[in-house]
Amino acid sequence: MILVEPQLGENIGFAARAMLNCGLTDLRIVRPRDGWPNPKAKAAASGADTVLERAMIFDAISDATAGLQQLYATTARRREMVKPVLTPRRAAEDARERVAKGERVGILFGPERAGLENDHVSLADAVIQAPLNPAFASLNLGQAVLIVAYEWWQAGSTVPASHTPLGKSPRANRAQLLGLFAHLEAELVACGFLRNEEKRPSVMRNIRNALERAELTAQEVRTFRGIVANLVEPKFKRPARSRKA
Amino acid sequence: MILVEPQLGENIGFAARAMLNCGLTDLRIVRPRDGWPNPKAKAAASGADTVLERAMIFDAISDATAGLQQLYATTARRREMVKPVLTPRRAAEDARERVAKGERVGILFGPERAGLENDHVSLADAVIQAPLNPAFASLNLGQAVLIVAYEWWQAGSTVPASHTPLGKSPRANRAQLLGLFAHLEAELVACGFLRNEEKRPSVMRNIRNALERAELTAQEVRTFRGIVANLVEPKFKRPARSRKA
Repeated sequence: MILVEPQLGENIGFAARAMLNCGLTDLRIVRPRDGWPNPKAKAAASGADTVLERAMIFDAISDATAGLQQLYATTARRREMVKPVLTPRRAAEDARERVAKGERVGILFGPERAGLENDHVSLADAVIQAPLNPAFASLNLGQAVLIVAYEWWQAGSTVPASHTPLGKSPRANRAQLLGLFAHLEAELVACGFLRNEEKRPSVMRNIRNALERAELTAQEVRTFRGIVANLVEPKFKRPARSRKA
Repeated sequence: MILVEPQLGENIGFAARAMLNCGLTDLRIVRPRDGWPNPKAKAAASGADTVLERAMIFDAISDATAGLQQLYATTARRREMVKPVLTPRRAAEDARERVAKGERVGILFGPERAGLENDHVSLADAVIQAPLNPAFASLNLGQAVLIVAYEWWQAGSTVPASHTPLGKSPRANRAQLLGLFAHLEAELVACGFLRNEEKRPSVMRNIRNALERAELTAQEVRTFRGIVANLVEPKFKRPARSRKA
């Protein structure tokens, strides 16, 4: 990540934190406005000190990027340049492929006020532009670094899109579920809730469907059976109910 | 987006800016520590004032979420709960599907220091957890809102992953390219660069391959032909060269 003439130390710190959130530690800064090191950057980095300590400071983009093969330029505005424009997601995939081939890859971020100059963008192989609300597309510098870094991490992540941790109990099997349904039905008959014989099958179907959707664990089935049993035969005397309640 | 007991006004402002970047304007805040309105929030919002002006303030999460059908809770930590855990990307797809069906969807974000309490997480239908560097996974509040909002916008975006704007000139056709190659080859023969007859075909193939990869526009082909012509016959007298240069 190469920050070109960043103005605010806070934003350098936010960028460092976002980088470390996403496993990136090679920060380069070209002509930071307020000099270096910058105590405001350290405060905003919230523990990502290692990124700031290893940051390299340069006088020119050409020096900061000399050893890189592939250079991307980030921009919020459309530029009149015949150059590939990638979403952050596509750029992250592209960058991962290049790094796997041994290329060194860098990403330029411009100053807060107006972003990269066209001359700087023209030095890059490709432009990264995030699809955002066209009426309010300008990102804070730290936020821009986060989006690019976040997509980098996602492109290499093997975390499943969705999973349900089971805790200590496995998901209930069919026998346990049917046991709960039978227990509940017997008590609902006994207490009069299912007194309408004709509607009883459809009411029970609805109850089964609702409980099926919850994908209960074996422990939760035992908990629900305990609830039913205790509602039927309280372990403690119920407090007297006020007629007004 | 529902911020629960946010501590810093700046983070509320960053969250508002990130929301508007991603086309979201319904911000709800439960018990902001420093009261409301908050001038630091306005400064950090950098123009997303409309989000702050329309923000609703609540005393309790139950009030802030009363009208919602689907509630997600964001967390950086693993919780011991049998509840679906979605990546921000999967959650955004899920939320888009629900909104398309007419459901109202909310996302809870906890306070900066420690995130949502387990009791708050247990109120939600699903957990959102971003895959991040496990050694440094805690996001700034504004950054967390950005990632979720960014994925929401991406899930509805039709922007192509990659495209190359052509400017005013279309991509060169084969005749224009072959014209450039022939022009260049003729001049390279004339100046002696291609004096080795045997190697000439392979040298020209390499040059053609390099120029093909650039996917030149018609205008760029004309520019390159002009460059060749001018190098051969300068319009102005060349300055005398120093031997040392």
